[in-house]
Amino acid sequence: MIFHKDKLLRFAHCDLAGIGFYPRYVELINEVVEDWCAQGLGVSYRELHETHGLGLPAVRLEIDYLAPSRCGDVLNFALAVERIGRSSMTLDVRARADGSERLRARLTVVLASLKDLRARPIEGDWRARFARYLPAPESSVEAGTVSA
Amino acid sequence: MIFHKDKLLRFAHCDLAGIGFYPRYVELINEVVEDWCAQGLGVSYRELHETHGLGLPAVRLEIDYLAPSRCGDVLNFALAVERIGRSSMTLDVRARADGSERLRARLTVVLASLKDLRARPIEGDWRARFARYLPAPESSVEAGTVSA
Amino acid sequence: MIFHKDKLLRFAHCDLAGIGFYPRYVELINEVVEDWCAQGLGVSYRELHETHGLGLPAVRLEIDYLAPSRCGDVLNFALAVERIGRSSMTLDVRARADGSERLRARLTVVLASLKDLRARPIEGDWRARFARYLPAPESSVEAGTVSA
Amino acid sequence: MIFHKDKLLRFAHCDLAGIGFYPRYVELINEVVEDWCAQGLGVSYRELHETHGLGLPAVRLEIDYLAPSRCGDVLNFALAVERIGRSSMTLDVRARADGSERLRARLTVVLASLKDLRARPIEGDWRARFARYLPAPESSVEAGTVSA
Repeated sequence: MIFHKDKLLRFAHCDLAGIGFYPRYVELINEVVEDWCAQGLGVSYRELHETHGLGLPAVRLEIDYLAPSRCGDVLNFALAVERIGRSSMTLDVRARADGSERLRARLTVVLASLKDLRARPIEGDWRARFARYLPAPESSVEAGTVSA
Repeated sequence: MIFHKDKLLRFAHCDLAGIGFYPRYVELINEVVEDWCAQGLGVSYRELHETHGLGLPAVRLEIDYLAPSRCGDVLNFALAVERIGRSSMTLDVRARADGSERLRARLTVVLASLKDLRARPIEGDWRARFARYLPAPESSVEAGTVSA
Repeated sequence: MIFHKDKLLRFAHCDLAGIGFYPRYVELINEVVEDWCAQGLGVSYRELHETHGLGLPAVRLEIDYLAPSRCGDVLNFALAVERIGRSSMTLDVRARADGSERLRARLTVVLASLKDLRARPIEGDWRARFARYLPAPESSVEAGTVSA
Repeated sequence: MIFHKDKLLRFAHCDLAGIGFYPRYVELINEVVEDWCAQGLGVSYRELHETHGLGLPAVRLEIDYLAPSRCGDVLNFALAVERIGRSSMTLDVRARADGSERLRARLTVVLASLKDLRARPIEGDWRARFARYLPAPESSVEAGTVSA
């Protein structure tokens, strides 16, 4: 499964050349991850924090800014899970607009306790939830053997 | 040469777990690049834009978030040029605090016209300026042959 | 007429106490104004900038932060036009969540040329559009006599 | 006493018209308040949070954007305490650049517990510290009688 979300490239995201400023895309990517949790996985960030005491801090981010976008462009984001490790997972996040790919990112986050910031194994229900967004059944099996 | 700059991890950079929120570090990295231009290269962003009509849009960013930092930590940033291509260059940006490395990033930017967003060859004076921050003389020669 | 828009208070908006950080609400207010232009007035910011060469820079902002909001709260924003002057107008922006008012803001913006940043009189079509969000017919007449 | 602090108006603060974007100034004001605590009062935000369990959430903000500033302008901020109430205080924050006033703000913050977000009376040492930035001795006495 792939999670899709549209995001407007707003005035606040753009620099004096009138195009999206590169740090702002990281905020948009973060919004998409937040929306995916709530709408794709059925666990809002608030629930993740307050009910489960967990967060998803980033350990690695890679972004290719493939083409500039202008204020007013609607970016069609697509999020999939590329890999689930012992306590981390890598998300594949891409954005397209008007038929061209604008951005390709890989974000590795860790399931961690908000209290001590320690990583927690991704198990049971959590693993099952995240795994639904792995690209294909066989990859899911393979990814399960990769450690964080 | 290496450009060094201290940045306070501010309240505004931190999330509800009390640690630096990963998109905010991208803003800090951008500040360090801006300071490097003005203080390291002697060309402020304003001069770059207004006098030369140029900008440095990002085409690729990689960040490893090695360890969390807390509100009030002073991050010691170190910036070097890893590679200069025909019209792009890759910056190596690292941050340490209290003796541990917190962040390691590679940012590839393009020298581009603000008008048409087209890449411009990094030549003459510009190349000489950027090259002073390449790690060592022999690397400089090699890097010069890499195309953007 | 009143323009209504829901905004999620995101993780990125919250500070280490877990509540909305006051500068972030200004960004949310700006989003609501941007949405109002596109969805309420039928003129997107892009159209405003590119077709008309105009922008809406702020000249005054007042915000009362009436009650804290937490990550995950959905803020129901309501925007109305309080006053239209010669070239400026004051917007009344309020946010409620879970039955309580959280925020009350007044934002005065100027219709200005993007080229020279000079104020432009709010006339004809523009005035008619904005005036639809004035609170009541008699106020509209009064407001029309107030100068920027 | 008045606390002075210079802030560069950075690329990241500017919009597509090349001038400071109004929500970014609120972030700059917040930086100035944070710097004032650490450098003016001798209590960093970290100390305020971790040692004292206190924060300074905003309850009201007023900003007059008097003149636009461009990328590269150095804003000379001046912060004074206008009024100290029972548990709140109003800060007067102004910014000048190149001989003209650019911004005038009044920010009312509350001394509050980070745990329960409840206001705490500004007493003893805290009151003495803040009061050093009141405009004049007689105002200090008056302000002391104003309740939050």
